[in-house]
Amino acid sequence: MTVELVGQLGDDLAIVNAARVSYGKTVEQISERDIGLIRFLARERHGTPFEHVVFSFRVRTSIAVSREWFRHRIGSFNEISTRYVEFSDDFFLPPLENFRRQVGKPGAYSFEPMDAAESATAREAMRAAYDRAYGAYKELLDMGVAKELARDVLPLGTMTEFVWTVNFRSVTNFLSLRTAPAALLEIQQEARQVEALVKAAVPYAYAAWEEGGRASL
Amino acid sequence: MTVELVGQLGDDLAIVNAARVSYGKTVEQISERDIGLIRFLARERHGTPFEHVVFSFRVRTSIAVSREWFRHRIGSFNEISTRYVEFSDDFFLPPLENFRRQVGKPGAYSFEPMDAAESATAREAMRAAYDRAYGAYKELLDMGVAKELARDVLPLGTMTEFVWTVNFRSVTNFLSLRTAPAALLEIQQEARQVEALVKAAVPYAYAAWEEGGRASL
Amino acid sequence: MTVELVGQLGDDLAIVNAARVSYGKTVEQISERDIGLIRFLARERHGTPFEHVVFSFRVRTSIAVSREWFRHRIGSFNEISTRYVEFSDDFFLPPLENFRRQVGKPGAYSFEPMDAAESATAREAMRAAYDRAYGAYKELLDMGVAKELARDVLPLGTMTEFVWTVNFRSVTNFLSLRTAPAALLEIQQEARQVEALVKAAVPYAYAAWEEGGRASL
Amino acid sequence: MTVELVGQLGDDLAIVNAARVSYGKTVEQISERDIGLIRFLARERHGTPFEHVVFSFRVRTSIAVSREWFRHRIGSFNEISTRYVEFSDDFFLPPLENFRRQVGKPGAYSFEPMDAAESATAREAMRAAYDRAYGAYKELLDMGVAKELARDVLPLGTMTEFVWTVNFRSVTNFLSLRTAPAALLEIQQEARQVEALVKAAVPYAYAAWEEGGRASL
Repeated sequence: MTVELVGQLGDDLAIVNAARVSYGKTVEQISERDIGLIRFLARERHGTPFEHVVFSFRVRTSIAVSREWFRHRIGSFNEISTRYVEFSDDFFLPPLENFRRQVGKPGAYSFEPMDAAESATAREAMRAAYDRAYGAYKELLDMGVAKELARDVLPLGTMTEFVWTVNFRSVTNFLSLRTAPAALLEIQQEARQVEALVKAAVPYAYAAWEEGGRASL
Repeated sequence: MTVELVGQLGDDLAIVNAARVSYGKTVEQISERDIGLIRFLARERHGTPFEHVVFSFRVRTSIAVSREWFRHRIGSFNEISTRYVEFSDDFFLPPLENFRRQVGKPGAYSFEPMDAAESATAREAMRAAYDRAYGAYKELLDMGVAKELARDVLPLGTMTEFVWTVNFRSVTNFLSLRTAPAALLEIQQEARQVEALVKAAVPYAYAAWEEGGRASL
Repeated sequence: MTVELVGQLGDDLAIVNAARVSYGKTVEQISERDIGLIRFLARERHGTPFEHVVFSFRVRTSIAVSREWFRHRIGSFNEISTRYVEFSDDFFLPPLENFRRQVGKPGAYSFEPMDAAESATAREAMRAAYDRAYGAYKELLDMGVAKELARDVLPLGTMTEFVWTVNFRSVTNFLSLRTAPAALLEIQQEARQVEALVKAAVPYAYAAWEEGGRASL
Repeated sequence: MTVELVGQLGDDLAIVNAARVSYGKTVEQISERDIGLIRFLARERHGTPFEHVVFSFRVRTSIAVSREWFRHRIGSFNEISTRYVEFSDDFFLPPLENFRRQVGKPGAYSFEPMDAAESATAREAMRAAYDRAYGAYKELLDMGVAKELARDVLPLGTMTEFVWTVNFRSVTNFLSLRTAPAALLEIQQEARQVEALVKAAVPYAYAAWEEGGRASL
């Protein structure tokens, strides 16, 4: 599961200049005062200037995780096709430390780790299930069934790949929801990769969002 | 695979009155002239009046099909959770006549039906694959693995359910793409159910879209 | 400046049932437990169920105010055309108590009321300016200038009218921003009308949003 | 009235690579085959790959024109504030050749040019109206009226400035509607500037859209 930054439009300065257009001004280089402006914008929830920074990411993840990702409607996705591409034998086998039990009641679930032996057993059971599912997929293809129909036997753990183009404001919404402790662990792990990339790309805007409590801008 | 209409805002008259606000007028009942106006709006691609009719649908479909459906960003979805609900043994087993081969080359694929015996064999192979996958899911749950992780072995053919609230303009985009001959057969079949429901709900707007060549309004 | 509710899709129960689809359940009538669920959704920022309630409003306001309104992108607008309709002599003349001075510094502006005599003088100056502008508009029309060009002399205080179809979640974003003390007074006054209408329409969802601090859902 | 390109994410190659992710491939340099792929995507209305190219424009135009521009909801705007900035004496005075009469009937309006003498007279009437309106604005400011209220006497011809960040697909929707003969002449003139900039920025994608009949991708 990996996230790579493949393109970027704008930076902290672009946010400042988008905001300063309100005052009929632009600047060439970022100053202390501009950093103060970015903090002010984040604090006052003036979100639109943060939309002028746009990222393109290339993401590899499981179909299960991608289903949560694609629910973020403000942004653009192009994904590898399961209709026209024959899938290879590539599935998400969670690291041992990801294995967990769900405890608690509806509305207040939490998770606790399984022990090492249990995790190893469960992991082998997943691997075996993946192998059998892939075998059935290949068998259907051998019978002549179209890939777009045969894929119905592929598991949700099948790996997929997509390009995601999204502005920084929408990224903060994604991070706010998907790095929260209640989020699915596997999407948290990828969201942390997204977070590291945007932190490096727009350090002042990132810091302003982070200090402001990580709510969606 | 079923689609049910559970709510509707506005009708053909609402489209007319949204358009007539441009001219500072409203009407109480639809007339021949209003039907002409609806045709004019569709022909000239004045799409916004068609956004004032909104539908809520309840849809049952496979996860494979839902992945295409959720790519339609203008609209609202709430889906049954695969994190917190234990899935029952309910999978999409295609009717025999859905079994097909993919023929042709990239960019120009088409499909031809498989014969009855082949289809029956393929269908049995799918059923067996579903059974094994569901067995593995239950086994993981029995080991204590959280539902949100165990689901990774469930197949893309697993049935899901969601509520979809969407305006008529966005529906025409959906129908234009998803009833096209190049669309996935299974989504075509559900899109035809959506089409029948909106045809009954806004007959004049539907007719104007249909006569105009079924392009997105 | 008036706001009228002309249509509604869904209610508190629709929110509950959209949320309960996650658990594979629906209810027919709202219960104490459902009210608790609505509060839970608002508190945890599970915003999507609130999108299944949709309103159509008919709004009369000034062009100046409409420019802020139309910046809300999640929703649908149809407005009276200034290209094809000859505008009547109808302008926003603020009530005396709306006249105010701007005080403070950039980023921390506030307003203080003008006294009654000053307000009356200013109001007469506005009225006179409107009259002259309307005279110029009519003069240009008499010369044969197209309405779409002659309108350039009409003031931002010119009244306009539009239909706005928007889901409840997007309404809470609008209310959060436009009823805030820092918002333009005139849009605050209309936003309060919107607020009263949605409060009556979805009382439990409204209360949950209000108790939760009026942030965008 | 001017449009300037101030930032760009992606190019023709980014479109190709977003599309090729469907087939699990990327390329480093654009080839004849890729140009064919771009044409195929445009022809078949596969619009999403065109969303991975994003532009930031800086636009100067009249408030009248900006009102049409801001109706394009897929994109981001930051505009000079009429609440906090004192407007200078800067209005859109149309060139003589823009003066026109509206002829025809509702649903089929067209325009014919006014003669030179009429145009000059009308232009002087507009200039005089602008002068009077600006005088009234300054008078209200002198009385102490807040800028956000005094602006109500400013004309729709007042010049404004904004930053617009928008993907190429949404640009084609804008160009399709706003360069059409039925569009407001003044927005046509600015849309042609946008068109020249995107033509230079993504020549193959532009050509594919243009050859395909200039419909929204």
